[in-house]
Amino acid sequence: MRFEIQAECSETGARAGLLHTAHGIIETPVFMPVGTQATVKGVTQRDLAGELDARIILANTYHLFLRPGNQLIRQMGGLHQFMAWPRAILTDSGGFQVFSLSDLRKITDQGVLFRSHLDGDAHLFTPESTVDVQMDFGSDIMMVLDECLAYPSSHEAANHAMQRTVQWARTAYSHYTRKVEETGSLSALFPIVQGSMFPDLRRACANELLELNAHGYAIGGLSVGEPRALSLEMTEVTAPLLPKDKPRYVMGVGMPEELPEYVARGVDMMDCVLPSRNARNGYLFTSEGRVVIKQARYRDDPAPVDPKCSCYTCRTHSRAYLRHLFQASEILFSSLATLHNLQYYLDRMRQIRQSILLGTFPAYLDGLRRSAVE
Amino acid sequence: MRFEIQAECSETGARAGLLHTAHGIIETPVFMPVGTQATVKGVTQRDLAGELDARIILANTYHLFLRPGNQLIRQMGGLHQFMAWPRAILTDSGGFQVFSLSDLRKITDQGVLFRSHLDGDAHLFTPESTVDVQMDFGSDIMMVLDECLAYPSSHEAANHAMQRTVQWARTAYSHYTRKVEETGSLSALFPIVQGSMFPDLRRACANELLELNAHGYAIGGLSVGEPRALSLEMTEVTAPLLPKDKPRYVMGVGMPEELPEYVARGVDMMDCVLPSRNARNGYLFTSEGRVVIKQARYRDDPAPVDPKCSCYTCRTHSRAYLRHLFQASEILFSSLATLHNLQYYLDRMRQIRQSILLGTFPAYLDGLRRSAVE
Repeated sequence: MRFEIQAECSETGARAGLLHTAHGIIETPVFMPVGTQATVKGVTQRDLAGELDARIILANTYHLFLRPGNQLIRQMGGLHQFMAWPRAILTDSGGFQVFSLSDLRKITDQGVLFRSHLDGDAHLFTPESTVDVQMDFGSDIMMVLDECLAYPSSHEAANHAMQRTVQWARTAYSHYTRKVEETGSLSALFPIVQGSMFPDLRRACANELLELNAHGYAIGGLSVGEPRALSLEMTEVTAPLLPKDKPRYVMGVGMPEELPEYVARGVDMMDCVLPSRNARNGYLFTSEGRVVIKQARYRDDPAPVDPKCSCYTCRTHSRAYLRHLFQASEILFSSLATLHNLQYYLDRMRQIRQSILLGTFPAYLDGLRRSAVE
Repeated sequence: MRFEIQAECSETGARAGLLHTAHGIIETPVFMPVGTQATVKGVTQRDLAGELDARIILANTYHLFLRPGNQLIRQMGGLHQFMAWPRAILTDSGGFQVFSLSDLRKITDQGVLFRSHLDGDAHLFTPESTVDVQMDFGSDIMMVLDECLAYPSSHEAANHAMQRTVQWARTAYSHYTRKVEETGSLSALFPIVQGSMFPDLRRACANELLELNAHGYAIGGLSVGEPRALSLEMTEVTAPLLPKDKPRYVMGVGMPEELPEYVARGVDMMDCVLPSRNARNGYLFTSEGRVVIKQARYRDDPAPVDPKCSCYTCRTHSRAYLRHLFQASEILFSSLATLHNLQYYLDRMRQIRQSILLGTFPAYLDGLRRSAVE
């Protein structure tokens, strides 16, 4: 994997780049649609590539490990072939879902023991096993197992979890390096900076992880309930400590208006379930603000969801029709709404990238901030 | 609306034709996908037209009358514009759903009083009002209100319902004729032959309805619980009584293997929820028989659902992936499975049509019957 920086903003930390993977070139900054169970809910792979031109999606190791299982996915030729997605895939380590979805977690220095939310079966994730699972998937970018705390956490608990995260990253990296030598795998492995909301712990964690000389670095432990300003502050503290020539990935953010804020702080990659989950719940992002489609005002509205949007949904359908589908609980609503919200996020990232390349990012950011205040 | 017969089978009653409507030409015999609530569940209008090349779909008056309402659809420019479907639409009269879905039905010579299954509100459908509602939709083909009995029914009850159906058809036709003169509407109106499973009543009903000189005729009151052989027998009794130069529509049938049997009896149009409903439940039709996708045998099956099928689903995905989506209750499963099952039905009808045009329909039918016995 090779990361090439094409342009840097002279006033902010924003950069535009190209991330070269075995499954195509990803233009950064990039927003990665979430395809938890090897599908972006309601969207065909054809539309993900053709309509949205997504270059990389995220899939969740926890879910796919439990069902259909990494052995099966490996047997079917890996995740790309299994889901018929020829472009890049990033998988998380499963740690976050273990902490948020499963029962009866027991963390030791070895790893984390948990019970499946599907059938209650006990499983153990270790730093080594989660690398193995993701190698079975054949992910382009794998993540190390980390310990992600809820917000708020004490400095002591955060320090302890951070130390364990560093130790796990070292273990994972040794294992990964051996496996790459054995198998010639092209998968990259990103460590994750933890440290809760404590700048000193974030700094310490970043410093330790730098020694791994990884292909890229993630900032984790955000979007866990803290105020949004704090997520940005932690990113601002951490991003400058990470290598300039490697991609930086902030996990699980954010709202559309936050995307340029993260980019301004030197972030290259983001993912979030918001556009797809909100879509299914009838919350649509538009250039004119939020459209809550169930509202009676849209009952006879012949306009597209967003007159400035070029997605299939906006090219084809009215708010009135979408509201009808939503009210009637029709499957098609989820598909059309998700297509729209993802296009909104991806278009916004493409605008951000374009403005960095053109040298106009500060003005772009300024305009967005001013329109947010109004 | 104009019906043009292109070829007739010399040994059976099968015919191939072209039905010219204001929204395109429909090649017959035709299977009409069901789009109950102004959407074929899980399928975009783009795929309905582009992938499946459906020329006509069916929508349900009962559902659309209740939600979003015919007034709104009219205000939005009619059903074609509301759902962004530029091809032909047939709507039923709503009668069948009143009998199967609503509470507290009260039938009088005037019409049928019923309570909405959505909110319990009382509504009245009359022969005139259901024409008005369908004219608000702008349907290419409208159906008259009829009284559809469950199976079995006594001869006396069936006779009574048949007489009322004839009376309603006359009332609907007078109203329709007046409205066409007033508005210049291009919608056609098909009366429905009833008579339960009694050949004498079917004959009497057909004879009465012939006087209306309609654009086409439907055979209703089938698929209401009777043995399949009996549905075919009633069709065999009724179809020859209907005008040769008008399209004949059997409502609510059938299984894939039954399509050519209806065609052999002189039927030009059919519709059924089976392909779409079975798809959502994981039952897939294939050239090699039924695939029940949840079965463990498909867990690691890399083959497409049907190796002989050219649909998007079969071109793109394995049985193993589809099984995973089904087991994980993913929305995408419904979309992919529905696309496949509809393509299976439409392809079968296209093969039937082709064989009629080529003069090989008897051999085609014979082959199918023999393979069904094996």
